[in-house]
Order: sequence, then C-alpha cells, then structure tokens
Amino acid sequence: MTTATVHLSLSDAHALAVRILEHNGFSAAHAHAIADTVVAGERDGCASHGLYRVLGCVHTLKQGKASGDAEPAFHRMAPALLRVDAQQAFYSLAYQQAVPQLIEIAREQGIAAMGINNCVHYAALWRDIEAFTAAGLVAIACTPSHAWVTPYGGSQRLLGTNPFAFGWPRPDGRDPYIFDFATSASARGEIELHRRAGKPIPEGWGVDEEGNACTDAAKVLRGAQLTFGGHKGSALSVMIELLAGPLIADMTSRESLAFDGGKGKTLPMGGELVIVIDPKRFLGEYADQELARAETSLFKVMEDDGVRMPGARRYRNRAVSQQQGVDIPQALFDDLNALL
Amino acid sequence: MTTATVHLSLSDAHALAVRILEHNGFSAAHAHAIADTVVAGERDGCASHGLYRVLGCVHTLKQGKASGDAEPAFHRMAPALLRVDAQQAFYSLAYQQAVPQLIEIAREQGIAAMGINNCVHYAALWRDIEAFTAAGLVAIACTPSHAWVTPYGGSQRLLGTNPFAFGWPRPDGRDPYIFDFATSASARGEIELHRRAGKPIPEGWGVDEEGNACTDAAKVLRGAQLTFGGHKGSALSVMIELLAGPLIADMTSRESLAFDGGKGKTLPMGGELVIVIDPKRFLGEYADQELARAETSLFKVMEDDGVRMPGARRYRNRAVSQQQGVDIPQALFDDLNALL
Repeated sequence: MTTATVHLSLSDAHALAVRILEHNGFSAAHAHAIADTVVAGERDGCASHGLYRVLGCVHTLKQGKASGDAEPAFHRMAPALLRVDAQQAFYSLAYQQAVPQLIEIAREQGIAAMGINNCVHYAALWRDIEAFTAAGLVAIACTPSHAWVTPYGGSQRLLGTNPFAFGWPRPDGRDPYIFDFATSASARGEIELHRRAGKPIPEGWGVDEEGNACTDAAKVLRGAQLTFGGHKGSALSVMIELLAGPLIADMTSRESLAFDGGKGKTLPMGGELVIVIDPKRFLGEYADQELARAETSLFKVMEDDGVRMPGARRYRNRAVSQQQGVDIPQALFDDLNALL
Repeated sequence: MTTATVHLSLSDAHALAVRILEHNGFSAAHAHAIADTVVAGERDGCASHGLYRVLGCVHTLKQGKASGDAEPAFHRMAPALLRVDAQQAFYSLAYQQAVPQLIEIAREQGIAAMGINNCVHYAALWRDIEAFTAAGLVAIACTPSHAWVTPYGGSQRLLGTNPFAFGWPRPDGRDPYIFDFATSASARGEIELHRRAGKPIPEGWGVDEEGNACTDAAKVLRGAQLTFGGHKGSALSVMIELLAGPLIADMTSRESLAFDGGKGKTLPMGGELVIVIDPKRFLGEYADQELARAETSLFKVMEDDGVRMPGARRYRNRAVSQQQGVDIPQALFDDLNALL
C-alpha cells in the first residue's frame, strides 16, 4: 500500500500555512512567523515539526489559552540579559524579533542570554540555533514541555521531553554543527505507536504507575517515560526545567501540563533559554585560526572515522526540498484544508 | 581482610599536602590552592579527587611539562568574558583568583563566561561550581581531558571523559543542586579493574580497535571507550571539546594526549569553560519567589518521590569529615610520605 501524497513547492506550502492561520484567528505577523517555522521543518524532513504543527497551533488557539495576535515585549534586564515576553502567544514571532537584538548584545558583551517567556512552544530548537550559527555565533538552547517523564529513580511525572540543543558555526560555507535532542529516552508518539501495534517497548523507555521498569506500552503511557542515559540524562533534564523555568520566571513542564488541565491536548506553554557566545570576542585575532582548528582536530577526525554528523539528514533534505518542494500525506493536506 | 588506614584531621591532611607539594617544587601559593582542592575531594568522600591526586600533581611537575610557580594572568576579553591564563601551571590557583572576578562580572552583566587556559586540570568540577552557587549564582562548567573515548559510531579515540557540571543555588541554607558527570559511559579505571579481575565489562562501555562493540576489558583498553547515552551523550562530549577547546584557544582531548606523548601518564593539560548567570538580574524583584518555586515545583516533588539528589553523598560525607577527619589507606599515606 502506498500513501497518497500531495506535492507542494515551499512557497505554496508557506502560503497555505499563512492562509489557514490567518483564517483561524492569527494576525498576519504571527501567521507568517509560524509559517516560516513549520515550512522549515517540512523542508528539512522533520514532518513532526512541519505543516502538521499548523493543526496543533489552530487547536491550541481555539482552546482559548493562547493569543493569536499579541505583540512581543522586550526587556533588557542587564547588559547581557534579554527577556522577551511573548504575551501568551506562539513563540515564533517573538523569537524572530529577538534574534537580531540578541546577536547585537552577544557581539557587544561577548556572551548573552535570552529568556523567552509566556509562549506556546511548538517547534524544534535546531532552527532557533541556526539563526545564531548563521551569524558566526555559538549557541545553546533548551525548553521544557509537558511533564510525561520521571527523574531517574522516581515514579512521578515531573519532566518534559526537554530538548537540549547546541550549535557551532563552521567556516568555509560548511553546514553548522548543530545537535538538538530530547532528554527523554523516546518520543511519546513512539510509545503510542508500539501500543497500537501491540508491541513491547524497549527496556529503559518507561516505568509503570508504581515506578517499576516496564516494557508494556499502555502501562508506560499511564505511568511515566524515562530520560535517556540514566541518572546523567535525568540530571540534564532537571537542569533544563530550572534554566528555562524558574530562572526566567516561566512554567516547569509539570506546571505547563497542569495549565492544560493535565490533558496534554494543547501545545506546551512555557519558556526557552538561549545562551549565545561570540567566538570573535573570546578569541580576538585568533578566532579564524581556532575555528579552523576545530575542523582539523575534531570534525575531520569524526568524518574520516565515519561518524554521522548531527543534522546531516536535515541538510540533505533541505537541498532537495529547495529544488523540488515537498510531498505531504493526502490525509494531512485534507485536515489542513478542513480548517479553511 | 581489612585495609590498614591512617586517620587525619582535615587540617592535618591539608598541612601534609602543602608540605609535600612545596617540597617537590610548588610555590606556596600553588601548594595551598592544590591542597584546598584535594582536601575538599578527600573530605567529601571522592578519593579519586582526594589526596591521591597529590601523587599525580608531583609526577606531572617532575615530567617538566608544567609549572609549579607561574602566576595566573587575567584578560577581560569583553564586558562579560574573562580569560584566565594559568601559564602552564595547575589550575587551582588561577581558578581561586578568578572566582571573585567572575562573580562580580556576572552580577554586573547578568551572565558571564570564563575560559581558563593553559592549565593542568586534575580536579572535579562540582567544587568549581560550588564557588558560584555559594554566591547565589547558577553555573555550568565543562572541561576536556585525555582522548580515550570515541564518538558514537566511530572507532578512533577523539573525546575525553569530558565532565559536564551544573549548579543551582537553593534557598534557606539547603545544599545546592549540583551535578557533575563524565560523558564517558565509565571511568577508565573501572575498565582497568575489570581487566585485572578477568571480568567482562558491561555492554556499551567500549569498542575494540576496529570499532566493534566489545565486552573484553583488555581489548577496549586498546580500542576506545564509549560515551554514555549513545549519540546524545556523544554530541554533548563533542560540545565540551568545542566549548573548552577551540572556543577558548585551548587543547582538545586528542591534543592533550598528544602533548603527553600519547601515554596519558601525566594529568591532562587543557582548559575549562565556566558560564555563570545571576538569577537576581534575570528575575529582578521576583528572584526569591522563583527560587522558592523551584523548591516546590521540582525539588520537593523529587524528594517526595524518593529520587536521589546529586551530591547528597558528598554533603553527608562532608558533614562527617568536618567533625571527625578522614581515613586514608596506609599505602597512600606511605606513597605520599615517600615524596618528602
């Protein structure tokens, strides 16, 4: 059986997303920013952060807990700190407007941090990082989500899938080194797929309601997911809750899920912390030499050794999509058009 | 069989370390700074970062590749960036002198980063972090080491055990939340212990010289160790190479091992990156309220759920050692005294 698909150029995909979002209550500015984000996901082959997310954005707006037109507000809390209040709207517009400000602050101060607050977060962090590597900066980003994950040794849902992302600019037109991974051992959707297929999940993905290790997908969905990497991944996930939660006066994953009435049916409300460093300020006249050394001492060794570089698949997909456009499932296309 | 031990008060342990270090060519300032570091390790029950390290410090100095008396130099590269040149000496003195400077910069700028360069790194990062949590600041630190670890999917030694540490200050006199973990799946010493005992090592600890998964300790010692957490831990370890290597113009783990002639017999020469954030600047008047929310929304839930807090063992050991002193193996005591 083949799945029927619909072919769209990137500009058609963008126009479709904008039309749906505007029709469903988003301002033009928000609709364009969200469309930029989801078309980038679709373009790079990340379907779960692609046009599919338009459905979630519209659903979340209709639940009445988010704004479709709020203007972001910017607060320079300290010389090297920027707080961006998205005012309960979707984070893309606030993020887009904040990027040039944060680049300027990082170049001036050497390092800068941004907390983006009170936003619906629905996108992958690698794209947030690319905005800074493209400017020659090093960046770290993290965000909590809905609390489906228990810390190592626990049984209570406390942590989100909590992605952590890092980017390093590479010279001579090379794609940046960017990784972006969930600190959960698996995506919730993968467990759901196992449940539907009646298959056990791998060990280490989750625990039952009593906190016992468990490979029964249904029981883990009622219990809690686990982090990757045992106590180390768990510690990282707690760090993300702190950095992108209380440090920027925003919700933890548990608070975000509670805000949603414990259902997880809307997109997570929360914050994101971004730290940006300018290598040119740390290194002065040696910056080019040191970036070149990262190539010879690290990346070339990895490439010669056959190590897969994070993001390689995204960059390949991007090159193809920019030439040929994208194919999306007919069912998704129909669901999108049903919103018009 | 019981191991013979020698009982020392913390001040006697400190005096012994200072005496040995001074007798073997360290300046008084360096001897005191190193003694502070190793006695803190011994006090907290981290024997591998305790008095035992005095042997490695003396051995490394005698190899002629490090200085026992260089004065650290400080360079404010940008308003929020500090570079500390340890001038080929052991990092403790440079670190101690840098701490008050970095605290002041973080309070002024909101966030600050420090690169500590050209140093022999021989201590655990949790203690470096404590200097900042004690001042009410949030901190992240990382350092490369000697390259015994291959990236996920590789076979070549490229990465160090590369620890990553994070600290969060807790209110009301509570011990700070500090984790500090190696990004390698295991310590090299643990593999050596398995080899001596003729026992296989757990899956996931290493690969043989061809890069094949392997549980033979001897083959893994000739091959390469693996990171924790598959491709995610590997990505973190690469990040640490970049942040505490080329970003601060210092050696990667591979370069540090090459500097040592590929033997790994001396302590790693390299750098450390520290990022410090002042919650009071990010949060203004809401700082106390948000730190209190971290307690109720995260730490209390973890504690009620029976989750072990990182560092708990260290704080328990510390309380005992401060009252009763420490017991060190007779063999270590003899090895130390042989240096006098």
